[in-house]
Amino acid sequence: MSQFWSESVHKLEPYVPGEQPKQTNLIKLNTNENPYGPSPKVLEALNQQISNQLRLYPDPNCDELKQAIADYYQLQSNQVFVGNGSDEVLAHIFQGLLKHAKPLLFPDITYSFYPVYCGLYDIEFHVIPLNEKFEINCQDYNIPNGGIIFPNPNAPTGIGLGLEAIKELLLHNPNSVVVIDEAYIDFGGDSAVSLIDRFPNLLVVQTLSKSRSLAGLRVGYAMGNAKLIEGLERVKNSFNSYPLDRPAIKGGVAAMEDKAYFEDTCSKIVASRTTLTTNLTSLGFEVLPSNANFIFATHPSFDAQEISAFLRKHAIIVRHFKQNKIEQFLRITVGTDEECLMLFETLKNFFAQTSPTRLA
Amino acid sequence: MSQFWSESVHKLEPYVPGEQPKQTNLIKLNTNENPYGPSPKVLEALNQQISNQLRLYPDPNCDELKQAIADYYQLQSNQVFVGNGSDEVLAHIFQGLLKHAKPLLFPDITYSFYPVYCGLYDIEFHVIPLNEKFEINCQDYNIPNGGIIFPNPNAPTGIGLGLEAIKELLLHNPNSVVVIDEAYIDFGGDSAVSLIDRFPNLLVVQTLSKSRSLAGLRVGYAMGNAKLIEGLERVKNSFNSYPLDRPAIKGGVAAMEDKAYFEDTCSKIVASRTTLTTNLTSLGFEVLPSNANFIFATHPSFDAQEISAFLRKHAIIVRHFKQNKIEQFLRITVGTDEECLMLFETLKNFFAQTSPTRLA
Repeated sequence: MSQFWSESVHKLEPYVPGEQPKQTNLIKLNTNENPYGPSPKVLEALNQQISNQLRLYPDPNCDELKQAIADYYQLQSNQVFVGNGSDEVLAHIFQGLLKHAKPLLFPDITYSFYPVYCGLYDIEFHVIPLNEKFEINCQDYNIPNGGIIFPNPNAPTGIGLGLEAIKELLLHNPNSVVVIDEAYIDFGGDSAVSLIDRFPNLLVVQTLSKSRSLAGLRVGYAMGNAKLIEGLERVKNSFNSYPLDRPAIKGGVAAMEDKAYFEDTCSKIVASRTTLTTNLTSLGFEVLPSNANFIFATHPSFDAQEISAFLRKHAIIVRHFKQNKIEQFLRITVGTDEECLMLFETLKNFFAQTSPTRLA
Repeated sequence: MSQFWSESVHKLEPYVPGEQPKQTNLIKLNTNENPYGPSPKVLEALNQQISNQLRLYPDPNCDELKQAIADYYQLQSNQVFVGNGSDEVLAHIFQGLLKHAKPLLFPDITYSFYPVYCGLYDIEFHVIPLNEKFEINCQDYNIPNGGIIFPNPNAPTGIGLGLEAIKELLLHNPNSVVVIDEAYIDFGGDSAVSLIDRFPNLLVVQTLSKSRSLAGLRVGYAMGNAKLIEGLERVKNSFNSYPLDRPAIKGGVAAMEDKAYFEDTCSKIVASRTTLTTNLTSLGFEVLPSNANFIFATHPSFDAQEISAFLRKHAIIVRHFKQNKIEQFLRITVGTDEECLMLFETLKNFFAQTSPTRLA
């Protein structure tokens, strides 16, 4: 607390990101990074950026990157907004498109940054419970609202939603902005990008952090009707003219262009996810059906936090959320096959050494 | 306009940055970039970042960079806040520290992003006119206020303010946050950093974009009492956990560490500024005394916009602001000696070819 803080600062409850350890010999399965590095073409493009040209400002509009994203999705570049990671893009969306008289709707179990943004921008919100299978039921959102947002696949459950359900949702809510946060869409979901030309109220958010292996470069984007994008540009240009540095712009372009590498690494992760799911199921875990590059799993006889602590002691980090309804789940990023196998073996050791602690 | 925009978006008047031309054969003296490239040690550090490690998130707290800045200025790292360029840092400052019941004060002629931030965060402000010599008179700020901000040296005038005046201002305003925006301080001003331990209400903002030749990497920072920094961290962690990418963090560290290169390039620019000022004065320009890496100049007999258009036709861009009181001034970045000479020669041609258009 301080007399010098603006009043709103005292009430903020900041987001707590997953641990980014400085230790490098860990198997890091806690923040859904891609186990494969970025495309070699990205590294090549980045190398060309390391020059005296860094003395010059980047393009404030990031036109080249917008065009590369538009080309990939067959959109116009004025249907694309880019930012310093999808978290920044989401922040601008909350401020610019989701603050209305009626409350914003999102699931009770979802990306935990959403209520934080609502706190930052003083946005009223209402959470909609997932159903008993941890799924989003779109019909639950057909109530008066000032906007709707959820991830597809949802996080941290990993469960995907079909395009038909999203189309229904859009049809029922023509006066609300509907934001589909597709951070994990490339690991087996259907993108709502194909609906953009039909629905002027649809905004789709994606990131290069997961499927394009560039969490360390901070590039996110939103796609939608040009009017929605214009609203976001107005906010961005009132906040920071130059959100992306020169390496991020060029690296982003190269990442969008190398479709073959992207598809190859995504397929490998999807295959590893299947094996990991089978292996964990064989140990008694219940694993929610995942369309993402992580799985969400619970064990009926062992405490999630205890499992997590054991893994950590054995140099494997996974993510545990101390949150009602999911405190017995672990969110585990799909690593390489070797990393997943190491996890499997370590869990076998845990079960061999430990007595069940949860009541059946 | 759109029904989907939050109400506040309709009223925004976004900032318009100086032109960043895609053409590369121009002498670019319009956005105060450093004519010299970044330190070779920065390029070396950046090269090491172009690797598969980019798949991993950066350190959300940027501890290494905060420490490097703290070391440079003999502060503690909890007295340092970092962000994606000083524009982002300023945005968080406006939202987190400058929104109070009483109006924020800043000069009438100053960085034109300040009123834009006020619009974005709905902050009441009151502008204080510069004196007739285009100087900030600190006594004018001793009126009830909810905060004070100005650049030192001021932009676009380039005129610096001494530390004694700033100390007086701080003594007279112990209940207000006083932000000194030192984007240009390294070209001949005295930093207020030395006052931080004495004044808990002082915040100093700097950037790597100018004196450290890294406009293309987007790194800015604020320094002040740990309580002020904590307020900023609360806002940042409610906005975007990872504001700096991996290259920016490491490049920033190397830039702070290479003091010799930094001092050498700053001295060269200061020397070039003296020559440029002498040369323009010889052509009849009135040049305000500059402590920055740009000069602010007006010609009694020739129209500023006309001069600017002529220069542009000859591949030299400078900045002209269509703003009351300064519409007859040009802001000209100090380039290399060669660039400054080219400007001088082009201006000589202009005067040789053109009849005076302004009344004496």
